[in-house]
Amino acid sequence: MTNYQPSLRGFSVETLSCKDITSLEEMARQARINVLTMVALAGSGHPAGSLSSMDMYLMTYGVANLTPENCNNVDRDYVVVSHGHTSPGAYSALAAWGFFDPLDAAANFRLCASPFQGHVEREVPGIDWGSGNLGQGLAAGVGFALAQKARQHNGRVFVLLGDGEQTKGQVAEARRVAVKEGLSNITALIDYNHIQISGRTENVMPADVRALWEADGWGVLECDGHSFTELYAALRDGASDGVPTAIICHTLMGKGVSFMEGIPDYHGKAPNMEQYRQAVVELGGDPHFIDEVRPRRGNPLPLGREVPPAQSTLCVGEPRTYSPTEKTDNRSAFGHALADIGARNYEKKGGTPLLVFDCDLAGSVKTDGFAKACPHWFIQAGIQEHGTATMAGAASVAGVSSLWADFGVFGLSEVYNQQRLNDINKTGLKLALTHVGLDVGEDGMTHQAIDYIGLLRNMFGWKLVVPADPNQTDRATRWAFTEPGNVCLAMGRSKLPTLVDEEGLPIFAGNYSFEYGKAVKIRDGKDGAIFALGAMTWRALEAWNILREKGITVKIFSVSCPLHIDTEALKEACSTGAVITAEDHHYQSGLGAATAFAMAQEHLFASFLPLGVWRYGDSGKSDDVFNHMGLNSTSIASRVEEVLSKK
Amino acid sequence: MTNYQPSLRGFSVETLSCKDITSLEEMARQARINVLTMVALAGSGHPAGSLSSMDMYLMTYGVANLTPENCNNVDRDYVVVSHGHTSPGAYSALAAWGFFDPLDAAANFRLCASPFQGHVEREVPGIDWGSGNLGQGLAAGVGFALAQKARQHNGRVFVLLGDGEQTKGQVAEARRVAVKEGLSNITALIDYNHIQISGRTENVMPADVRALWEADGWGVLECDGHSFTELYAALRDGASDGVPTAIICHTLMGKGVSFMEGIPDYHGKAPNMEQYRQAVVELGGDPHFIDEVRPRRGNPLPLGREVPPAQSTLCVGEPRTYSPTEKTDNRSAFGHALADIGARNYEKKGGTPLLVFDCDLAGSVKTDGFAKACPHWFIQAGIQEHGTATMAGAASVAGVSSLWADFGVFGLSEVYNQQRLNDINKTGLKLALTHVGLDVGEDGMTHQAIDYIGLLRNMFGWKLVVPADPNQTDRATRWAFTEPGNVCLAMGRSKLPTLVDEEGLPIFAGNYSFEYGKAVKIRDGKDGAIFALGAMTWRALEAWNILREKGITVKIFSVSCPLHIDTEALKEACSTGAVITAEDHHYQSGLGAATAFAMAQEHLFASFLPLGVWRYGDSGKSDDVFNHMGLNSTSIASRVEEVLSKK
Repeated sequence: MTNYQPSLRGFSVETLSCKDITSLEEMARQARINVLTMVALAGSGHPAGSLSSMDMYLMTYGVANLTPENCNNVDRDYVVVSHGHTSPGAYSALAAWGFFDPLDAAANFRLCASPFQGHVEREVPGIDWGSGNLGQGLAAGVGFALAQKARQHNGRVFVLLGDGEQTKGQVAEARRVAVKEGLSNITALIDYNHIQISGRTENVMPADVRALWEADGWGVLECDGHSFTELYAALRDGASDGVPTAIICHTLMGKGVSFMEGIPDYHGKAPNMEQYRQAVVELGGDPHFIDEVRPRRGNPLPLGREVPPAQSTLCVGEPRTYSPTEKTDNRSAFGHALADIGARNYEKKGGTPLLVFDCDLAGSVKTDGFAKACPHWFIQAGIQEHGTATMAGAASVAGVSSLWADFGVFGLSEVYNQQRLNDINKTGLKLALTHVGLDVGEDGMTHQAIDYIGLLRNMFGWKLVVPADPNQTDRATRWAFTEPGNVCLAMGRSKLPTLVDEEGLPIFAGNYSFEYGKAVKIRDGKDGAIFALGAMTWRALEAWNILREKGITVKIFSVSCPLHIDTEALKEACSTGAVITAEDHHYQSGLGAATAFAMAQEHLFASFLPLGVWRYGDSGKSDDVFNHMGLNSTSIASRVEEVLSKK
Repeated sequence: MTNYQPSLRGFSVETLSCKDITSLEEMARQARINVLTMVALAGSGHPAGSLSSMDMYLMTYGVANLTPENCNNVDRDYVVVSHGHTSPGAYSALAAWGFFDPLDAAANFRLCASPFQGHVEREVPGIDWGSGNLGQGLAAGVGFALAQKARQHNGRVFVLLGDGEQTKGQVAEARRVAVKEGLSNITALIDYNHIQISGRTENVMPADVRALWEADGWGVLECDGHSFTELYAALRDGASDGVPTAIICHTLMGKGVSFMEGIPDYHGKAPNMEQYRQAVVELGGDPHFIDEVRPRRGNPLPLGREVPPAQSTLCVGEPRTYSPTEKTDNRSAFGHALADIGARNYEKKGGTPLLVFDCDLAGSVKTDGFAKACPHWFIQAGIQEHGTATMAGAASVAGVSSLWADFGVFGLSEVYNQQRLNDINKTGLKLALTHVGLDVGEDGMTHQAIDYIGLLRNMFGWKLVVPADPNQTDRATRWAFTEPGNVCLAMGRSKLPTLVDEEGLPIFAGNYSFEYGKAVKIRDGKDGAIFALGAMTWRALEAWNILREKGITVKIFSVSCPLHIDTEALKEACSTGAVITAEDHHYQSGLGAATAFAMAQEHLFASFLPLGVWRYGDSGKSDDVFNHMGLNSTSIASRVEEVLSKK
């Protein structure tokens, strides 16, 4: 490494001096050698794009107020790598600025259990957002900028993007939110090398990149992406004109290595040893460098930084109790609790802001009360769910609490992959899904989220709560803000009875407090057991009455956490010899599936009947839709009777 | 209804006559009354947008070569309703042009089991694409236009969109494909009434609609969306300048009803009876019309047309056999079979075209051979997966065979909702997913599709095949093109051994032919049974050898259809007392989940061990990643031994 490193954080000089430029060029030369070394050693990776983005990376990490010292704090600048496959470039630039030992990255790239993965992840110090699927980075940057604004922190956000991903729709969604919210502190740098995997961008999918950004109201600058002078000036000017700015950086794919320059083949191909040596010699390096690095591979394996699931610190207030004579919908109970929490925290000096995101459905998803109480914390993101999912997730790791409420089909089914990336990024998003299951009113099959359990069962970190009545909804909503990580609340549309015990007292009030993973036995019996989910719980209670008239008694468990089956409750249920699951979710992938799986794992055996949704549902009044699907209380009772008779 | 109806199909006159206009206005007046009647009767729906789109609907369905007689054929014009919630407008316009009895639609809107759903579905004659999630319609239209082009049919495609959905990213993706592919026959009509649910579009999410379409290279016309003269001229001129055209139709929300005009509240609210009567009187109708219609509600319930899953008619050739000494990857075997099928059909006069879609990964997903053999059938859609999923699906219901190949994480995880809409639309898409499971090379966790089974288990129509070796891949690929509906093939990245029986002969060759849903017993034993999926099959065979050395014998079933468990095989497996599932998929949502569920349903009992992926995987060489996850052959053997010891 060169000894002199320019000190440019926060654009401390007007223009770069010759000494600064010489030093940066020397850093870039060495970083390029590092890129080649790590890719050659791993035998795979994306060298050419890393080389073309190299100077952008070095300059950005050089000016950003993001340092090895502050990178675990929240009030600082943020840098997002959207084209995550150019990780060798990002790692080498971060190493050059002292975030970690460059040899650690060079030696351990793409090695099992190393933090230096093929696509950037947050375990690497200085990486603010793990990416891999293209097109999501700008939305993450917008999420960070929104968090900064809410925290009244005067930082900047830099997002580096590839040119191939310019055509992803989600990029445009994020652009529009940035303009609408006045996020002039966000700067996008586009590595415009004109080459993607299949060839030149103009041939693969023509796009007028400048026109696209301008059409959405961004300022656009262009510069030579290999000139530090021009990059510095563009980055400095990026935040000066009151609108978010995109810098189109004209670059050369494979920059610095003659036989890689402009050649699509090296997009995702490692050089062989002969090519490696030739490349390093061209860059003025020692072709035997790799032999020095090789023995360090895995010896020892570097540790990544720990990334705990994001946690918020809001005052969540006291539970509200709905009486047995009140009949309301869970989404309203959620909305009341949210507005209450918002109001309690809104005027608090120095408290954590709570950002609530909406996609043009506030009235239906009941965030309108919050919007009124906390107008500066309410983000109307329009009909742009993909962008919203990512920005709401990203905001939660940048010092704010973050909640997004939407219909189940938009907030999860439509943006499944974004929620998966939120899981990977260990965000602390609170996701309120309304209109789940068959309970969407007359909107019909496209709007019936009968898959939300099945979708979240594919992930590892999400928690899911499907409350059974307004009282449980109130308590689960408040609990969600005390729980680290991503939490989903799922609610139907219709009004529900307040659930009561056999004495007529509210079950989910009084001494009850919400405990994640616990199934609550709400009726007892001996002939069988029903695991009932959400909107099916009161129907199961009605079935219980019908069955009792016939001399049949069953246990009823209210199951609100279908991702984490309560094994004690399951054992008790199986002891009756028959387990029936009741849900308005796809019968193969929801509570029934989770229950059968837990039975098999726990070596439990019983007659089993999974009642649920077995075809796309109808468009009609909710009760009619449930009736047609065989999911009303009389159907449940007769199906239970049937299974018990065969026990 | 008025007696005279203008005959305008195919723009048969230069300009509309006064008589034509008078007649159209009368049709529109009656259709608006119909809209109000159906919404009032159902007690829900979206009246105001239906009224603003009304004249656009009437004019489009009037000029399009889409009639009650030809609407079940493929070579004709197509009309897509992207803003599916304005279904009352679409139904009333279709009824006005004779597709069905207007009273049927008015009476049975949003009634359980009626085809006249809240959002348009293909069961209604004249509806070419079921929508509900906004932003997907243009991509469906592009799919239809691509099919027309491949069939060398000179038809047109009209797509009607709302203004709120202009900000959805997928719209932009579809725009770019239309321009790149020279689809000048596609015309988009935008209902620009400036109002969405939360208020004026300029406030909810500002977007320069004209600039967005122009930035992507579309011609843009503007017209008064309530002037039949202007609409007719714009629709006629739309296909005249060699580029796809968008018509911004300036309209008034709630047009024709004074108290609804320009009021956001009526976006999704039905009028009450008093409002209904007032509205109908304003429109010159009889306020008692609804009382005549009411008794028809459900008496009888109208039947929708039958929509069978799309079926293709390609020559699929003869299976190719890979010898035991060959070691290749399944994706290459797929690519060879696809290129073979392509070549056999490409020059065939009058045969069905086969469109193959790519998102910048042809070399990796092995469609490059096909692209070379059938260049006119290969669609490079760029890094725009959401648009591609929909256009590939839509093309398959418009007279072509359609295949999209992509990495699992892009072709399904990223576009889950689009594939769900394809399921709802009963398309016949063949979806080839490569790089599934942990077998993605070093790309790491974002690229590991460990959820594809779990995702498809949420749907009803998809079939999924995960071949165990190249021979089975070849046969499954050819079979897929003979099977109606949506079929997914899932393949890893690495080379695999050709699977052989105990005599060393290829298992999936010779007399073997692929049978959907059948598990194939490839080794016998008595102590337990392994259900092995895809890339885990050869590892399970190695485990079988290890166990045999220890005197333990197990049955091994090669399971290639995890969505449809073979119950005969499962019974045989359970008869051993222990079932182990082995997959490189999330252990809770894939083959293990399907197996446990089938056991519970079939009342089968055995010790159960689900081996699979239990955390996000590493970035490293495939074999290393499998080792770290405990999924190599020695791990399998020792876990099996463990479970058998506790049996």
